[in-house]
Amino acid sequence: MSRFISKRIQEMSVYVPGEQPQGGNFIKLNTNENPYPPSPMVTAALREMPADKPKLYPDPSCMALKRAIAEFYKLDAKEVFVGNGSDEVLSSAFRAFFDEGDKVYFADITYGFYKVYSSLYGLQATEIPLATDFHIELSDYMGLDGHMLIANPNAPTGLYHTRQEMEAVIQANPDRLVIIDEAYIDFGGESCIPLIRKYDNLLVVQTFSKSRALAGMRLGFGIGSPALVEALEKVKFSMNPYNINQMTMAAGIASMQDRGYFEETTRKIVATRERFSAELQARGFTVLPSRTNFVFAKSQTLSGRELYEYLKDRKILVRHFDVPRISEYLRISIGTDQEMDALLAALPQE
Amino acid sequence: MSRFISKRIQEMSVYVPGEQPQGGNFIKLNTNENPYPPSPMVTAALREMPADKPKLYPDPSCMALKRAIAEFYKLDAKEVFVGNGSDEVLSSAFRAFFDEGDKVYFADITYGFYKVYSSLYGLQATEIPLATDFHIELSDYMGLDGHMLIANPNAPTGLYHTRQEMEAVIQANPDRLVIIDEAYIDFGGESCIPLIRKYDNLLVVQTFSKSRALAGMRLGFGIGSPALVEALEKVKFSMNPYNINQMTMAAGIASMQDRGYFEETTRKIVATRERFSAELQARGFTVLPSRTNFVFAKSQTLSGRELYEYLKDRKILVRHFDVPRISEYLRISIGTDQEMDALLAALPQE
Repeated sequence: MSRFISKRIQEMSVYVPGEQPQGGNFIKLNTNENPYPPSPMVTAALREMPADKPKLYPDPSCMALKRAIAEFYKLDAKEVFVGNGSDEVLSSAFRAFFDEGDKVYFADITYGFYKVYSSLYGLQATEIPLATDFHIELSDYMGLDGHMLIANPNAPTGLYHTRQEMEAVIQANPDRLVIIDEAYIDFGGESCIPLIRKYDNLLVVQTFSKSRALAGMRLGFGIGSPALVEALEKVKFSMNPYNINQMTMAAGIASMQDRGYFEETTRKIVATRERFSAELQARGFTVLPSRTNFVFAKSQTLSGRELYEYLKDRKILVRHFDVPRISEYLRISIGTDQEMDALLAALPQE
Repeated sequence: MSRFISKRIQEMSVYVPGEQPQGGNFIKLNTNENPYPPSPMVTAALREMPADKPKLYPDPSCMALKRAIAEFYKLDAKEVFVGNGSDEVLSSAFRAFFDEGDKVYFADITYGFYKVYSSLYGLQATEIPLATDFHIELSDYMGLDGHMLIANPNAPTGLYHTRQEMEAVIQANPDRLVIIDEAYIDFGGESCIPLIRKYDNLLVVQTFSKSRALAGMRLGFGIGSPALVEALEKVKFSMNPYNINQMTMAAGIASMQDRGYFEETTRKIVATRERFSAELQARGFTVLPSRTNFVFAKSQTLSGRELYEYLKDRKILVRHFDVPRISEYLRISIGTDQEMDALLAALPQE
């Protein structure tokens, strides 16, 4: 490593993303991508982009995109922040709202980046253990002495809390920022977005990567009071004002405008998930009830590592986390019915 | 502003990008965009993107893109870092190599983001005044007690130092990182890229936004020793591993593969610049000798502000910086010959 590396970066342990095999004909059920292509309106918007448009800087205010998102959720554009993936939205929120040494809380088993950002920004992070059945114990989050991040539904468990349950946490921490990461909310959950006008301490983060099939375009958004969004914009204009490119902007707008396709594909994924979960249970698996586009499941006979390897040998990629408490489980993304049938057919007899 | 805003961000003054009018039929000569469309190979790559590719995460290692850049410059992919615009590369370099309180040096008149990043990352920044003729006085940069950023050619002046002159600075600061920002190098300058194997304290930053007509796609790169690149990668995997989307990746690869188009369009822009500079001088303007795709020029009769307004009224946008020393100047991007003729025709008689 370079002799010029900063102390902070030298000490960091980084997030390890799921494998992205470039070729090899895998059935790819390891990074929670959408099995269906994006809306045909997105494809048309990308293909019809005038050849000389990419030479021009994008609108740094991203106004047309913010308006499209605002229209979908019946919001004002001032309540919308957009980022280069929801990772950038989360990172910007850490930068915007937390000072070095601040306390933050999140679950011990959740999206790995909360811990990485805490370390990057020098925060005092406390991990709150999940209950033994892997639920987030919301009573642990009442009246905390620091800000908090809650993934709802949580990953990689897939477990979900209702909007009413989440609202109780927001209410119980009026002087703390509550960031709710709703990356998977569209697969059967109720979003907390409608609460943002009631609570100025709520930031909801979502992504185009899952329910909108645009993981490859990198687009996420944060929804909150105009004051929260203003602070996020200040971070953006201090770091990378032109963070969203012309093609991603066009794709995002078209995606938001095609509500029908969005609803149809998420419904299909939910139906496949329910059928697949039942089939796994019939084969003796423990399957957590999922409100996401993945299931978190454990075999009766093989360890998590063994089953991961077994499936990989058969050209099926799923995600295994080699960490305490969950190392016996696999996170399996919901693909098409055919892909899930291929996985079921490949499983060893239990 | 939100009561949750962090102290650091509250205190920040942010970078103000040039105007990006969305419509209005301006001749847009204010943000140094390329007047020609990107290579036809880029357009083809974008249009031929399979409809279901955007649903998949991009390769976080960006290997194919790094290889294309490495091939163009006869480098190894390990010597290449790519970012969401060169702003992200610069910001990542600040994060990777500078600790809070570290000293950094740059010119008083240069790219505005160096100052913004210094403030964002809590550095002790010293601005070194340009000489009275606006040259960077390189003798001021010998044996400094901190890291340094030098834009070569510099913006908004357009003035340039040879590779040999830059090498002397790198040699004189063996234990300091020297970041050379070559956003405009392709318009007649000699890049310092060939020096990176000789000096492990050199990071060269370039962009696809100017000479490659891809400002709208957001792509920049840093070239340095594998150890420097490794540190930058560590920042990326701590912040936003999937920073480059599928379309930008494809556009960048195609752009690097079409050397002929790149050379032809940069040659045309340089020819237009030389003709336009001569015409301005014939009209009594002071014009700094430019090695970029813009000229920095001063009218004999109108103030910078007045001429900016005068041209804007005539639907021609140029950039005026309302800051000491240069407020009498305008930065005028080089467009097509027709666009520059329209500007010349619109000028008031001097």
